[in-house]
This record gives sequence, C-alpha cells and structure tokens, in this order.
Amino acid sequence: MFYEKLNWRYATKAMDPAKQVPAEKIDRIVEAARMAPTSSGLQPFEIFVVYNDGIRAQLSEAAFGQRQIVDGTAVLVFAAWDNYSDARIDEFVDLTAEVRGSSDGLKEYFDRLKGMYLPREADVNFQHAARQAYIGLGFSIMAAAEEEVDATPMEGFDNAKFDEILGLTEKGLKSVCILPVGYRDETADWLAPMKKVRRPRDQFVTEIK
Amino acid sequence: MFYEKLNWRYATKAMDPAKQVPAEKIDRIVEAARMAPTSSGLQPFEIFVVYNDGIRAQLSEAAFGQRQIVDGTAVLVFAAWDNYSDARIDEFVDLTAEVRGSSDGLKEYFDRLKGMYLPREADVNFQHAARQAYIGLGFSIMAAAEEEVDATPMEGFDNAKFDEILGLTEKGLKSVCILPVGYRDETADWLAPMKKVRRPRDQFVTEIK
Repeated sequence: MFYEKLNWRYATKAMDPAKQVPAEKIDRIVEAARMAPTSSGLQPFEIFVVYNDGIRAQLSEAAFGQRQIVDGTAVLVFAAWDNYSDARIDEFVDLTAEVRGSSDGLKEYFDRLKGMYLPREADVNFQHAARQAYIGLGFSIMAAAEEEVDATPMEGFDNAKFDEILGLTEKGLKSVCILPVGYRDETADWLAPMKKVRRPRDQFVTEIK
Repeated sequence: MFYEKLNWRYATKAMDPAKQVPAEKIDRIVEAARMAPTSSGLQPFEIFVVYNDGIRAQLSEAAFGQRQIVDGTAVLVFAAWDNYSDARIDEFVDLTAEVRGSSDGLKEYFDRLKGMYLPREADVNFQHAARQAYIGLGFSIMAAAEEEVDATPMEGFDNAKFDEILGLTEKGLKSVCILPVGYRDETADWLAPMKKVRRPRDQFVTEIK
C-alpha cells in the first residue's frame, strides 16, 4: 500500500551497481515531477537525468564522492531558473494559450505577476523557483517509492561545480538538489537496518478544531 | 492508477462546503508530510491543521479572500523553523539516539552540522528550512491525490498575518505555504474543465546518456 511504501523508502546510502532500474521506471519518476504543481504553473526548473558513467563520476567527485551517484542507475539533477524574466513568463503564457485558448484574463494575470516578480532581486526569484523545484523533488521521491526504486535526495554537493559540469549557467539554471536512483545494497548499507526517525505526531502536527 | 491521479488533481478554485473530507483521509495527507525526507532528517517545519471555522475565516481574509480556505474541510499551514539552533538540533540528536541507540558518529555528524548551520544568518537557515517544508508539501499534495481529495497549494497569502493568527512567531516558526483540502465544486469552478498545462517533456527534461 501507498503509505507502507513511505516507510519502506529511506535515504539509501549504498546502491548495488549490478542492479539496473528499468528506464520506464525512471521515466515515470521524472514524469511525476513534471506533473507537480508550481506557483502560477510556471514550472521554473528543469531536470537533468544523467546516465552517462563518465559524467556521473565527475558529479560524484563534486559531491564528496558520494557513491550512490555512480552506483545507482541514474542521477536526477533539479536545476531552478536563476531568475524570472519576461521571455520565460511569455513562453508559459503562449503555451497556456495554445492548450486552453487565449483570453484577456490570462494576459492580465501574468502581466500582474511580471509587475511583482521582475523588479525583485534575482536571488529572491531564484529562491522562489528553488522552492518549486522541491515540490517536484517531493513528487519524484514519492514516485520512486511507488515504483519500489531507491532514491536518495541530496543537497550536499558543490552546486557551482555541478552547474559547470552540466553547462547550467549558460542556460540560466542553477542546480538545487539531486536524486540518485537505483537499488539498495542491503548488505553494504549501514542505514538499511536502522529504524526510521521521525518527530512524534504531537510535536509535528497541531490541530485547531 | 497512481499516475492518473496526478492528472486528475488540479489547483481546485471552488470547493463544495457541503462535502466534508473524512478526518482519517486528512490524517493520512498530513502523515505523508511527516514521513517526507528532509535534510539530515531534521524536519525543520511543523504543520497546523485548521478546521476551526472562525480561524479559517480570518486566514481566508489574510489570503485575498480565497474561498477554498473556508469552503474546504481544513487548511494545512506549513510553517518552517525561523532558524536552526543548538536546542533544535540537540532535540533531534536525542530522538535519534532514543530510536537507534546512541553513537559517537551521530554526535560527530551533528556537531559538524552545527558548525556549518549556526554561524549562518537566520534567513539563510530559514530559506533552507522552507525548502524542506516544500518537500513535505509535495508529499501532502500527492497523498491528497492518492486519497482523491482536492487540495490547492497556495503561496498567495499574508505570511505575517498568518503567523500572528496562529501564534507562530513565539514558536520560532514562519508560515511558508498552505494547502486547503476539500472536494471540488465542479459546476462553480472555472478551472475544472480546463486542460492541464505542463511544459512538454523535451523542454523540461534533458537526458544525458
């Protein structure tokens, strides 16, 4: 069941390079992030799915040598827009008009949004875009659990080096989080037998009735 | 199926106040966020589940009158830690030691983390905590879809007023995003018949083989 899978998943520390995740499973894990909702629908991030061994070796080196990046089947790199721009918002307005038909309301809504976003500092917009990428990250993590694929969300890597290796800067993108996907190597993983640690519900949730 | 539900869900604009979401479904939607992974496991956020009509009316007013907050069955408010602190990290170390047993490695890891987090400006830490809350938000949105409950993620609200109404500041928390849950009123919702807009896969995903 769905909720059992949330308990089954964990931040896998050792992946078995001999076990390959089928491509269609990885496609669905990525697709979940593409379907994730984002602020005003803008989807201000992209996903790089790196299978290439040589590039994964470079990425692993830029991530304190974390082995899941190379021992998994692929690593998803979530890269957020470095800023909002006229062109990026227009592109989304055009796409929406194409799918749903054009309307005055559509243009007005996004003109108002531009008035709000475009005068802000780039970093404020980047932080906002990064949060949207994290919704997508959440969707991919849950989809991986649904697929019974192991996935280890990571922030501990050299963002600038990742951006360089993947050529993100010239695309106006900045890496924010990564998700190696693969299959756990239970015998090698110190974390595998450990119980999950979560704050008790009464310390995490407050109901106001 | 799981992926069909991601297409079924949408940012519901009109909810039917006559249809109540069963409490156990809301509990599972919240539980998904509690089970979500976070950086180093710290879970640097809390969730307030507001059922109370009077308080929801105040929250709706502080959110440009958005009706889903009152017409749904409850609204989840995701509130991130305003900063990391010695006490907050120690509490997590203690919890981990309780669940898994104490170890030198555990203490060392979190001492190193303190050395990294505690000298940083509060806002840098808050932004980091907020991102973790968005992973939880993603989990709750997906869980709502799994439960066939409508849920509308929102950022468009007066954060300071939310913090005041819910007494978050004195708890060291700041509201970052909200998620009304309820059931769609299809006849009243202009968005209900609209096709979902998502960037095509080839503009959103780059595979590196």
